[in-house]
Amino acid sequence: MSTPPVAVVMDWGGTWARTAVVSRQGDILWQSREPNPQGGTKEEYLDNAERLLTSAIEQAGASPIVGIGAAVAGPVEPTTGTFYQPPNLKVLDGVSFNALWEEKFSLPVRVGNDANLAAMGEYYFGAGKQSADQGRPVKTLFYVTVSTGVGGGAVDKGSLFVGANGLTGEIGHTLVDSTDAALTCECGSRGCLETRASGTGIARIAKQTVASGEFPKSALAAIDSAALDSVAVFNAAKGQDPLAMSIVDGVVSALAIGLTNVVHLFNPDMIVLGGGVTVGLVKLDLLKRIQEQISARAMSELHKEFQLTSAVLGDSVGLIGAAALVWEQLGSEP
Amino acid sequence: MSTPPVAVVMDWGGTWARTAVVSRQGDILWQSREPNPQGGTKEEYLDNAERLLTSAIEQAGASPIVGIGAAVAGPVEPTTGTFYQPPNLKVLDGVSFNALWEEKFSLPVRVGNDANLAAMGEYYFGAGKQSADQGRPVKTLFYVTVSTGVGGGAVDKGSLFVGANGLTGEIGHTLVDSTDAALTCECGSRGCLETRASGTGIARIAKQTVASGEFPKSALAAIDSAALDSVAVFNAAKGQDPLAMSIVDGVVSALAIGLTNVVHLFNPDMIVLGGGVTVGLVKLDLLKRIQEQISARAMSELHKEFQLTSAVLGDSVGLIGAAALVWEQLGSEP
Repeated sequence: MSTPPVAVVMDWGGTWARTAVVSRQGDILWQSREPNPQGGTKEEYLDNAERLLTSAIEQAGASPIVGIGAAVAGPVEPTTGTFYQPPNLKVLDGVSFNALWEEKFSLPVRVGNDANLAAMGEYYFGAGKQSADQGRPVKTLFYVTVSTGVGGGAVDKGSLFVGANGLTGEIGHTLVDSTDAALTCECGSRGCLETRASGTGIARIAKQTVASGEFPKSALAAIDSAALDSVAVFNAAKGQDPLAMSIVDGVVSALAIGLTNVVHLFNPDMIVLGGGVTVGLVKLDLLKRIQEQISARAMSELHKEFQLTSAVLGDSVGLIGAAALVWEQLGSEP
Repeated sequence: MSTPPVAVVMDWGGTWARTAVVSRQGDILWQSREPNPQGGTKEEYLDNAERLLTSAIEQAGASPIVGIGAAVAGPVEPTTGTFYQPPNLKVLDGVSFNALWEEKFSLPVRVGNDANLAAMGEYYFGAGKQSADQGRPVKTLFYVTVSTGVGGGAVDKGSLFVGANGLTGEIGHTLVDSTDAALTCECGSRGCLETRASGTGIARIAKQTVASGEFPKSALAAIDSAALDSVAVFNAAKGQDPLAMSIVDGVVSALAIGLTNVVHLFNPDMIVLGGGVTVGLVKLDLLKRIQEQISARAMSELHKEFQLTSAVLGDSVGLIGAAALVWEQLGSEP
């Protein structure tokens, strides 16, 4: 019996570099992670990555490796795998991973943005697969990570939608607030979804509202400002704190506006929400309220025919998404 | 010498049914149009269409027909060509064109939404082709018709993005106004792009503002309410009328918001604007102001790398778009 083929993958974030060996079924057969060399040079970052990939390739043992996949935190050009001004991995600006690693390892390489590849992971091995297994195969899946920031990706009939330059699915920077009170976003614009729904945005709104002194009796007012994060807000909302509940209401309605735009533009039959803020929303059973608000705004009955669900893959979504890209592009069928 | 193949196409709108014979190069070799049977039954509508298609097939003469293509005004399921609650062709609700016409004519049939197919037409035979001819081939094109209503479509690497049910590109019903002053849209929601940028929306805003009595000296106040349409507003803006100019400013900023969302979600390298309102915007040289406003909001330099241009194909965009779909799906290469 021949050894089944595997994908060797990396998930490279601002803090950690994770590597894994992943089967055709999306199972992680081996994994490891290391912190990035803090304050390191480009060469130190790349040497570290090569060492980690070499180690993963060794772990693959006798299994044939169909390719190397990488999910990276930042914009990446899809045909060359060139990193473009990654905000959290600045030293790697301009690095073309495909050429670099293909020469080094003599294996085909596929690289994508981490939120984009999370969509691939959920499509093939997460919420999309569960739906298919239940007799309801997904045609068009839109994934949103609601975390420190807000990003996303779209998979249509099994293929990642990469657009002209690989910069798609950036729902975090679509407009949800055109009022004078719209908050300024990290991107320099105002009123972006990320200002209202990200972990950073929720913490900022909580701190500003507490600082205004209008809600002295709120449970949030008793929390030290440094500890006043989105988790604290969700916990207080769970305890029926009115201020926390109103902040969470704002998160729900902002997500519903952004996702209604997505529904009208992409016509997905599945929307998957991931990231830490989603965990908070699920605990409060708010996904169905988001779905109701989208349905109330949707222009036609057919646009309302989508499943809204939380992500299945958790922390491994980057690794498994990178593997999904490898299987889709290099395996005969993922 | 063998006769080159042709596509037989139909553009079926709320008022007219147009048919044509179109070459591989996107040239209209013959065309005709007839009004829909007013107040007719479903059978009368379908008999009329069959007669028109039969006539077009006869006009194709000795040329082999690769297929029948149709652009229809309303939501249409892409694999069966089933019309779904078309607002302007209500008697045709539920008709499955593919099966109906394939049996009748013994030719393959492809049907799509008219704004979606306009994107295909501009990609292969309009603004996209012009760009390719100038050495700048387009990867991802987003088309917007700014007309009585606002619709759109996306073509990625030559293929129409149809989503789960063929209801994509509905930029007219994305949110651009979250203020208390947001206008109610035909779709039942509030603050949609269509309320601010469509011909109907512009006329409504002009009439309401004139009726408020706040601008008695405006040229628009001198126009009979029934004649106060978007053309009148653009003409008055051309004459530097302050009220008309401020209404047009609102159109520009609403389109810029909607298109910035599209830029972040689809990452197009070309945006094409068509429809009557676009003609007004072009006369006032406002496309570059729209582009500037999108660039000011865009989250990264690479997102700003798109061409914004007006449509090339004019009234024929539906016919040529239907032909583009036929060539893309049934020709060996469009």
